[in-house]
Amino acid sequence: MIGLSPIPAALPTSVPFTGPETLERRMGRPFRARLGANESLYGPSPKAVAALSAAAHEAWMYGDPEAHDLKAAIAAHHGVTPSHVVVGEGIDGLLGLVCRLMLAQGDHAVTSQGAYPTFGFHVAGMGAMLDSAPYRDDHEDPEALLALARRTGARLLYIANPDNPMGSHHPGATIAAMRDHLPAGCLMLLDEAYVDLAPEGTEAPIPADDPRVIRFRTFSKAYGLAGLRLGYALCAPDLAQAFDKVRNHFGLGRPVQLAGIAALSDKAHLEGLRAWAHQARARLGQIARDNGLIPLPSATNFVTMDAGRDGTHARALLEALGQEGVFVRMPGPAPLNRCIRISLGDTTALDILAEALPRALARL
Amino acid sequence: MIGLSPIPAALPTSVPFTGPETLERRMGRPFRARLGANESLYGPSPKAVAALSAAAHEAWMYGDPEAHDLKAAIAAHHGVTPSHVVVGEGIDGLLGLVCRLMLAQGDHAVTSQGAYPTFGFHVAGMGAMLDSAPYRDDHEDPEALLALARRTGARLLYIANPDNPMGSHHPGATIAAMRDHLPAGCLMLLDEAYVDLAPEGTEAPIPADDPRVIRFRTFSKAYGLAGLRLGYALCAPDLAQAFDKVRNHFGLGRPVQLAGIAALSDKAHLEGLRAWAHQARARLGQIARDNGLIPLPSATNFVTMDAGRDGTHARALLEALGQEGVFVRMPGPAPLNRCIRISLGDTTALDILAEALPRALARL
Repeated sequence: MIGLSPIPAALPTSVPFTGPETLERRMGRPFRARLGANESLYGPSPKAVAALSAAAHEAWMYGDPEAHDLKAAIAAHHGVTPSHVVVGEGIDGLLGLVCRLMLAQGDHAVTSQGAYPTFGFHVAGMGAMLDSAPYRDDHEDPEALLALARRTGARLLYIANPDNPMGSHHPGATIAAMRDHLPAGCLMLLDEAYVDLAPEGTEAPIPADDPRVIRFRTFSKAYGLAGLRLGYALCAPDLAQAFDKVRNHFGLGRPVQLAGIAALSDKAHLEGLRAWAHQARARLGQIARDNGLIPLPSATNFVTMDAGRDGTHARALLEALGQEGVFVRMPGPAPLNRCIRISLGDTTALDILAEALPRALARL
Repeated sequence: MIGLSPIPAALPTSVPFTGPETLERRMGRPFRARLGANESLYGPSPKAVAALSAAAHEAWMYGDPEAHDLKAAIAAHHGVTPSHVVVGEGIDGLLGLVCRLMLAQGDHAVTSQGAYPTFGFHVAGMGAMLDSAPYRDDHEDPEALLALARRTGARLLYIANPDNPMGSHHPGATIAAMRDHLPAGCLMLLDEAYVDLAPEGTEAPIPADDPRVIRFRTFSKAYGLAGLRLGYALCAPDLAQAFDKVRNHFGLGRPVQLAGIAALSDKAHLEGLRAWAHQARARLGQIARDNGLIPLPSATNFVTMDAGRDGTHARALLEALGQEGVFVRMPGPAPLNRCIRISLGDTTALDILAEALPRALARL
């Protein structure tokens, strides 16, 4: 092979997540319940499904590279201007782009130990260094993250609120206070993928014009459109415009843009999702308790459950659930890895889980 | 704004192409005929449309990050193994990734003067240098490209066969011979976006295992699925695997993957497209001649026409066509810019063009 350039040559061929389809191919059979990827089993808005379906015959046309109408709809939804909006191929894609914009080889970035691995994947991709602060009581630790950013001279500080994989959250005011103590030259990446599912007051009261923060949202969680790969960021216009320097300008197809606009228009569906999530969280918590697991409080579309022992035990439980046909995931490092993480399911999926969990525990 | 890292800070906020939607917003009315982006007015396979539409209600699920089934279908189509296949968000997205993998700041890459701008956009994005060789008789010039690559120590040599924007092509054997004279350490990027529309023998007889070449294909042209953003590359397995280091692993949604598989399965649609293109090229050539323009031979889904004078004249004609409601594009540098480039249209679009072109010429 002709040699790669030095930064990629030094990277491992790593994959941020193994998909459930890969596990199914290894097992030789499909999962009965898909509860590991924090997808929305409540499903997308019927308006989005209809828009996607109606746009199928128009798939011969490229999407608008400026995503004018989609950005206008997002801006209206948030009470900002389209110049505050960046759209892209999921938060994953946007995290990659912000790392392209902000990180040079040897720069530092800060996250929490066990937080979203795709951020670390993109930091490594730039030849930059990722430093991580431990969680504190199953929450990301604002003070530790800030101290680490100061100590390393970090260019980026990543925090998710609500958090994945623990499901915990901070009041939005805590995040806003954090922003006030960022070291100079450090941009806060605020991942609010799950904020539509969180209690009132979780959304950080930070204006889109604040140059210290870029916040990320997605259509993959509350909007139930993970399969479309559509995310966006809100930030100051000059930073938003800088994405034009590195983004895949025609990366968002026409059907995807139309489906996103339709999804945003369906406020009733979002309300329905919230009510559904409230009930599904309660039932998932009950299933956990019925089996001797401790459900952690959740501000998301999943419930993380303390399995009561260590990572080896939780891993064995996860694998036993897989053998019972239930796909779930778990945090990586200790002490988070005493837990398994189960996405909210519909009645069918939760019935399967309720039946499978005691059987999985009996396998251990 | 918090400062960007040095490479992006030095980049212009450039856009490879202005979309027709932007032009429509400026004009305040839609185009009557969309003949500028080399989309397929023949449209996608009904099987692909049906697959996309049927997948809409499954859009809550992420796509398989390994795109196993799609890669298997592509591999079968080409008689290679899935390990020779990379899939991504259009050829545009894949060109960005190959630049990430191969180029460091200050490296050189080679293309033709007036060839596909998005390649140059991604080269610049890495802080690398783009050198370009002139076309020769409206064809990319293999010898000049090779000489330039040798002189600059280029890491990448880009050539499209058939070519965009001129519509010309070389026999595949010429490209294979070119490969034999690449300087050491230089990877050839062979863009075959239009090859399904080209004469027999245009596809380069280069095995996928050849470490000196990576070839790019798309669902945007012959398959009529530009709005899905689905492209792929064929190359040696070790290079293919290296894309895992930098790609957006969940970047291809589930509906897109399913539509791609369905499109590949419809051989009759591809045959129909070829017959349609043959007729549409003939009619487009006749429209050109009827108006005193000289159609260049085309191996693509567009016809580039010599408007008989210089770039100023061709630009004025393009703008006059826009005022008549017809969206077309034109090459950038001289002497290519004596031409305008018109995509193949259906009867409706070509009827509009036939009526608009004399009116546009009369405006000059």
